[in-house]
Amino acid sequence: MSIDPTNDPALRSWVQTANLRGADFPIQNLPFGIFRRAGTREAPRVGVAIGAAILDVAACLAAGLFDEESDARQAASACAMPTLNELMSRGAPARRALRNAISALLAETAAVHRKQIAEHALVLQQDAELFLPAQIGDYTDFYASVHHATNVGSMFRPDNPLLPNYKWVPIGYHGRASSIVVSGTPVRRPMGQRKGPNDDVPSVGPSRLLDYELELAAFVGTGNALGESIPIEQANDHLFGLCLLNDWSARDIQAWEYQPLGPFLAKNFASTISPWVVTLEALEPFRMPLAPRADGDPEPLPYLTSDDDRAYGGFGITVETWLRTARMRDAGEPAVRLTRGLATDLYWSMAQLLVHHASSGCNLRPGDLLGSGTISGPAKESRGCLLELTWRGAEPLELPNGETRRFLEDGDQLEITAFAEREGAVRIGFGRCVGAILPANASDV
Amino acid sequence: MSIDPTNDPALRSWVQTANLRGADFPIQNLPFGIFRRAGTREAPRVGVAIGAAILDVAACLAAGLFDEESDARQAASACAMPTLNELMSRGAPARRALRNAISALLAETAAVHRKQIAEHALVLQQDAELFLPAQIGDYTDFYASVHHATNVGSMFRPDNPLLPNYKWVPIGYHGRASSIVVSGTPVRRPMGQRKGPNDDVPSVGPSRLLDYELELAAFVGTGNALGESIPIEQANDHLFGLCLLNDWSARDIQAWEYQPLGPFLAKNFASTISPWVVTLEALEPFRMPLAPRADGDPEPLPYLTSDDDRAYGGFGITVETWLRTARMRDAGEPAVRLTRGLATDLYWSMAQLLVHHASSGCNLRPGDLLGSGTISGPAKESRGCLLELTWRGAEPLELPNGETRRFLEDGDQLEITAFAEREGAVRIGFGRCVGAILPANASDV
Repeated sequence: MSIDPTNDPALRSWVQTANLRGADFPIQNLPFGIFRRAGTREAPRVGVAIGAAILDVAACLAAGLFDEESDARQAASACAMPTLNELMSRGAPARRALRNAISALLAETAAVHRKQIAEHALVLQQDAELFLPAQIGDYTDFYASVHHATNVGSMFRPDNPLLPNYKWVPIGYHGRASSIVVSGTPVRRPMGQRKGPNDDVPSVGPSRLLDYELELAAFVGTGNALGESIPIEQANDHLFGLCLLNDWSARDIQAWEYQPLGPFLAKNFASTISPWVVTLEALEPFRMPLAPRADGDPEPLPYLTSDDDRAYGGFGITVETWLRTARMRDAGEPAVRLTRGLATDLYWSMAQLLVHHASSGCNLRPGDLLGSGTISGPAKESRGCLLELTWRGAEPLELPNGETRRFLEDGDQLEITAFAEREGAVRIGFGRCVGAILPANASDV
Repeated sequence: MSIDPTNDPALRSWVQTANLRGADFPIQNLPFGIFRRAGTREAPRVGVAIGAAILDVAACLAAGLFDEESDARQAASACAMPTLNELMSRGAPARRALRNAISALLAETAAVHRKQIAEHALVLQQDAELFLPAQIGDYTDFYASVHHATNVGSMFRPDNPLLPNYKWVPIGYHGRASSIVVSGTPVRRPMGQRKGPNDDVPSVGPSRLLDYELELAAFVGTGNALGESIPIEQANDHLFGLCLLNDWSARDIQAWEYQPLGPFLAKNFASTISPWVVTLEALEPFRMPLAPRADGDPEPLPYLTSDDDRAYGGFGITVETWLRTARMRDAGEPAVRLTRGLATDLYWSMAQLLVHHASSGCNLRPGDLLGSGTISGPAKESRGCLLELTWRGAEPLELPNGETRRFLEDGDQLEITAFAEREGAVRIGFGRCVGAILPANASDV
């Protein structure tokens, strides 16, 4: 593991909002996304978040700000597109070259093109419309939190909460790519079949047990050919970066439909991701081991093990969820935090998830998305969904304004945020992953 | 239900191979696919199979063979593309207009442009390279055969073979889109974790229980918006046509990984589809009810029921699988039939599968693929996979040359075919869906 000069904590940007304490997007972050100026019909294109602004990479290229024949200039040629897929496909060296050049353009110490950039290649985030970062060919969701799996399992199988395969197999399933939406998109409460334990027959109606799931997700950079696997030593070369993911879940639909083939309609009505993809380079300073496996747990099988992954496979990222109900919004009250957890509480690293996924010969493609699964930790405050926090509704949450919640109600807004910080590094953030619940379509009832 | 004039059994084509008895592609069929002349670097484009040839639709358009300002000409403008997605998105009226015009161009009675077409817009199938018909955004596989579900269930849960949700919920799961390949692509035996009942711990190696699954699949034509469902009365407007699907399955990997979230690596190493999409129009004469539900089975819930679907929701399609081992191929022996089944033995219609899928508000997109699940019937010869045919390997198949098979071995070639026929209609076929097994990647062992 080598720390990149772009992560130097002494670096500051001439974009002053990037230097504010607690800013999500300091010059050490430089996450990639897709934007255009709101209210225009401009073509969406690649941007890099810096402070409260967005750097228009294609505009920098057009203005000749990247050195002739440099790798950065070559990589920037992938940035006039409406998705990050092309840049993702170029691989880690191209991404790093572009990141280094962007860092140099934005640094306080070397701002030769400052005026030109400020006038022609910077857009305020508040003036921008953000899009999905990539065309997601396939979306896979894992189940990598042993605490989440144990909690959920103990509700449904008290004698046998964790299935025998869990500590051997990074459990995952294919999700729905079409219904992945970018932060800010409203989420309509799904209709579906529900059958309670005391019901003779199922009925159809709006889900009564609508939940969120707090996750991180990795975008695949370069892919692998069908029939070829990815050695774990090369896993990081195939990862582009991370974003936030809310895997909205209708627990009543899920309970009735999921056997024997897994979740389907309970999950495919919407999944929300954050617009900014934080690169592996920005996360380098926060790499650390995952929480140790429990005594007696098996070692991961050889294809899932490397010295580097054991030492640095985890990311020291703090993840949070925040709820703001319609009543709180109307009263001008702020959101309340429901969860604070740690990504290092995952049982499997992102590299292990990627390697396992390709181990069958399944081809991953640039822009594919791998969700971690709900991130829950050992403490109650680190449970990553309402199913766990309220223990299936048996222990409702008491909100500061006197409201209670077992599951999400119409008008509720759920936000995921995350940040990485440690001594000797500049804190970086992930921005927001937010969605508010719309009532079910009455015409369907 | 109205029978289209393009289905008139008296129609014959001036392409003589289309008139041969038993031809898969008579003028009543006219399935769509994507092709180019083999050995060239031509752009792949839309073709229509006719007898032993392919009609190049874009070449017909360029030659001015469609009437000015006609709907057919408008639809043909979507046919210079390397996928059917654009044509699929145009909807059923556009498809029907194009089909009608193509039928007129190819009919024996009205072959005014015959010489021009034969010289400039016909390619022999044996001279063509065929591609995936569409860019498949999402692939969903269902489990719509009650006979298959009962057989599989009774192996794993003898006391409770069919789960309580089966007769209410069209069970399905999201599959892997990236690894869908077109007929003829070799299939590499997957590596994976297997753990036998007598093993203390899992091991990693080539799947020992590699199987095929005999399925039909529907391509979505026009989609629906996120948050909106599709009424069953409109389902057929959203379906483009059907193809053959082999959902290759590694049963040992599946048994160890599938709980609690369903099949993952056991299925995502490859799925093979046939190159020709048989339109709903071509299938109209073969519509019929599905086999009656058993006494005591519940009626489908209202969102899954319509008079039309009850009367015509099924397709009278006979499906078959054929095995040819490496030894049979080397000895010049023909393939042996393993299965002959009926698509009307499915418990849910394609319309019901589509409607259920969108009932949560999940958005379907043009080019999405919906697999039926393994088609098995009540008789042993109609079991659609080796797991059922050999009852988990307990009853090996005896092949005519003395070989036996519990599961697929390296070098085995598995072919799916299908056809629809009935009194008073011209038989139509689906072509071939074929794949041969390559040995696992030794470097991965």
